[in-house]
Amino acid sequence: MTMGVEVLTDQEILASARKGGHRHIVRVVQAVKEALRQGETALLDGFLQEEHPADIALLIKRLEPSEATELLLRLDPTKRAETFSQLSGRRQRLLSQELPRPVLVGLISDLKADRRADFFKHLPEKLRETLLPALAQAKREDIRRLASYAEETAGALMTSEYAVLAPHLTARQALERLRHEAPDKETIYRTYVVDEQRRLIGSLRLQTLILAAPQATIADLMERNPKRAHVNDDQEEVARQIARYDLIALPVVDDAGRLVGIVTHDDAVDVVHQEATEDMHKVGSLGRITTSVREAGIGLLYRRRIVWLVVLIFGNLLSGAGIAFFEDTIAAYIGLVFFLPLLVGSGGNAGSQAATLMVRALATGEVVLRDWSRMLGRELLVAGLLGLTMALAVSGIGLLRGGPELALVVSATMVLIVLIGSLIGLSLPFLLNRLNVDPATASAPLVTSLCDAVGVALYFGMATVLLGLPSV
Amino acid sequence: MTMGVEVLTDQEILASARKGGHRHIVRVVQAVKEALRQGETALLDGFLQEEHPADIALLIKRLEPSEATELLLRLDPTKRAETFSQLSGRRQRLLSQELPRPVLVGLISDLKADRRADFFKHLPEKLRETLLPALAQAKREDIRRLASYAEETAGALMTSEYAVLAPHLTARQALERLRHEAPDKETIYRTYVVDEQRRLIGSLRLQTLILAAPQATIADLMERNPKRAHVNDDQEEVARQIARYDLIALPVVDDAGRLVGIVTHDDAVDVVHQEATEDMHKVGSLGRITTSVREAGIGLLYRRRIVWLVVLIFGNLLSGAGIAFFEDTIAAYIGLVFFLPLLVGSGGNAGSQAATLMVRALATGEVVLRDWSRMLGRELLVAGLLGLTMALAVSGIGLLRGGPELALVVSATMVLIVLIGSLIGLSLPFLLNRLNVDPATASAPLVTSLCDAVGVALYFGMATVLLGLPSV
Repeated sequence: MTMGVEVLTDQEILASARKGGHRHIVRVVQAVKEALRQGETALLDGFLQEEHPADIALLIKRLEPSEATELLLRLDPTKRAETFSQLSGRRQRLLSQELPRPVLVGLISDLKADRRADFFKHLPEKLRETLLPALAQAKREDIRRLASYAEETAGALMTSEYAVLAPHLTARQALERLRHEAPDKETIYRTYVVDEQRRLIGSLRLQTLILAAPQATIADLMERNPKRAHVNDDQEEVARQIARYDLIALPVVDDAGRLVGIVTHDDAVDVVHQEATEDMHKVGSLGRITTSVREAGIGLLYRRRIVWLVVLIFGNLLSGAGIAFFEDTIAAYIGLVFFLPLLVGSGGNAGSQAATLMVRALATGEVVLRDWSRMLGRELLVAGLLGLTMALAVSGIGLLRGGPELALVVSATMVLIVLIGSLIGLSLPFLLNRLNVDPATASAPLVTSLCDAVGVALYFGMATVLLGLPSV
Repeated sequence: MTMGVEVLTDQEILASARKGGHRHIVRVVQAVKEALRQGETALLDGFLQEEHPADIALLIKRLEPSEATELLLRLDPTKRAETFSQLSGRRQRLLSQELPRPVLVGLISDLKADRRADFFKHLPEKLRETLLPALAQAKREDIRRLASYAEETAGALMTSEYAVLAPHLTARQALERLRHEAPDKETIYRTYVVDEQRRLIGSLRLQTLILAAPQATIADLMERNPKRAHVNDDQEEVARQIARYDLIALPVVDDAGRLVGIVTHDDAVDVVHQEATEDMHKVGSLGRITTSVREAGIGLLYRRRIVWLVVLIFGNLLSGAGIAFFEDTIAAYIGLVFFLPLLVGSGGNAGSQAATLMVRALATGEVVLRDWSRMLGRELLVAGLLGLTMALAVSGIGLLRGGPELALVVSATMVLIVLIGSLIGLSLPFLLNRLNVDPATASAPLVTSLCDAVGVALYFGMATVLLGLPSV
């Protein structure tokens, strides 16, 4: 009775997934694998027909290549292309080698222009050379053009499948033209108006067009001087503009102001996700992992982690050197070591907090470089309060373990260490930003290492003075 | 010559901002403040006319309330409402008290339905009671309905300004109706088809409608069984669906399957930003900060930071206790302390890396609970390689500072500490997820504190055994 989903058969799971009822991906994967093994084609086809391409892609990521290929072959061409374009570049390359050549060529032709260019960009030279000639001339040129822009720019993100209108057309003519072109365009909800040199001069909502008098001209109806990106703009800036101005798509222009593509809102939201992941990884002192964590190989993960770990060794050696410097102090009063992790840890923690706040605020553009001094004043106040509270908390322990003198050393160090840690955490992201390094590089481990080294010197220095211990 | 923007006058800055040329927000703020002070109304009006409401809102966030009010009053009503709706709740309340009552009432009427409900939800009881009666009956009811849903649910995020069609209409009739309704709807690009009980049965792209034969019925044209959210679904899940399925809007239904609202793509991308910020803050062991960091008060920042800092004190006390336990070992071989920050730090760093990877992968849904064992195996391999590399790096230093025996202790501890740190970092997010706690709570400082305590015990235990030091 209480077993719930556990007692469902594979058939029931697939049927339930089809109706959107059963979303437990691991169970669905198992059921699909079983259905493939048993050759239950009717069950599979029914399931695939109802599932969204994005969901089938999610499934394929968890199947063996041979299973994934069989699934792709069971899809109709349009859905196959949509599913394929949702897969990672790595898996696309893997499956390209499994799919029969004619199916692969058809699939590539059915991809949207931007996805097709992405696919080719990451293909091994050899496979690219055998596949390109099978495509129509126009598509080949489009691929070359789209693939020519640097990674993570507006140019690399945009698609060439947008609708343009000339300013002299009437609303009736424009609507007629859009009816014709719609099936080949990513969106006709927003169309772009260009002059004879193809320079972007306006944009038009489909809504405006169908509300307009049939004889009104596009030049009268369009919004002039629309928001735009340059082909070389960073994709993060493009995504930020689309979010800020609530756009369905952002037109992209070249140096001469000519319209060369559009970035659609759904591609922009993918960038937002991707950039948030990158920032989070940087804050965790990880290198750039563009592939899925589930799919990343051992070698890749090793390389992305070892660099920072080794860099941080030097940070920690600094703390070690500080300790070595104060060895006599420590030997004279071994009880001091008890509070070492607590004090340096608290400085690092307060520093991580301040750094995290600033890294994110700088990334979203909420705070800019010039806000530093304003932020600094407030941080000093907050950190002072935090330090005093924590000093109060630890002074009792100091009293118990070593009497009033130790309590004084520990409390005074705590206030200073939290203040200095917070200042380091707050300022490091601004400093990096000023040096044109991504502020997210001010990772928690980096801030912690810096605060640790400062903390060690501060603590033992304070103890030497206040406890009258043998000076170095 | 090389001064660049520094020598521009305020007039030039505003003129340049107007053309999209000068985007340095701090300079533009200064120029606007100056123009307000000098009463240069023509300059201001020209600037405001060209600027996008989202940009004006960004500006207002950096002005004094009296300056912001003056700017708002200079805008035409539509732009005033659009600008106002981009402001934070806190600033909206502030400005509500500055604006003349008739202007405020008009402004509220002009807001979009979802923004209006948000505004009222956070208004002080007293102001709400004086403002509500000034609104039309239909708007009052809409506010009550939209405000009745819990924060951060689909219900709280949705708007009631969507277009519905009946299945028996023809394409011509439907288009006619949409032409009529369009000005009051957030989007007509996607319309929703409901039966007599208002249950959602299909959806329709405007594109399909204008391409269809005039006599085709909506029932024939619509896509059946569209993706949907339930009013109580988490906003994060809603945003994830919109991104995954590349939607312009997602319909929201109640328990009976009746359509009650839609969430649009632009509101969804705001949620993506907001959730990424929240996750980042959690990883930095910060409490929930819903307001802008620039606007957050000292008291709020203090409260959001002190809780975790005090919790982490206990984690660090554990390390202290470990050190106290091994005091005799340390006293016998004071040189051991030199390596303490290095070893426990490395465990914490490796742990932070693993935790960050998993927190993000769980947040994006790329990895699910059941993937733990699969991830574990791979993590052991990667961490083993990392530990070996780092052991190699520090063994030399061990050799120099204390001879082969110390080198052995330090290297062996390093391998173990990196392995165990990585396992803690990897597993903690899964464990929290299993306990229905947000995995992002596995913050870098928390993982570091845990790894520190384990590291201290491991290091001195190993030293006691391998160096034959006085056991405890």
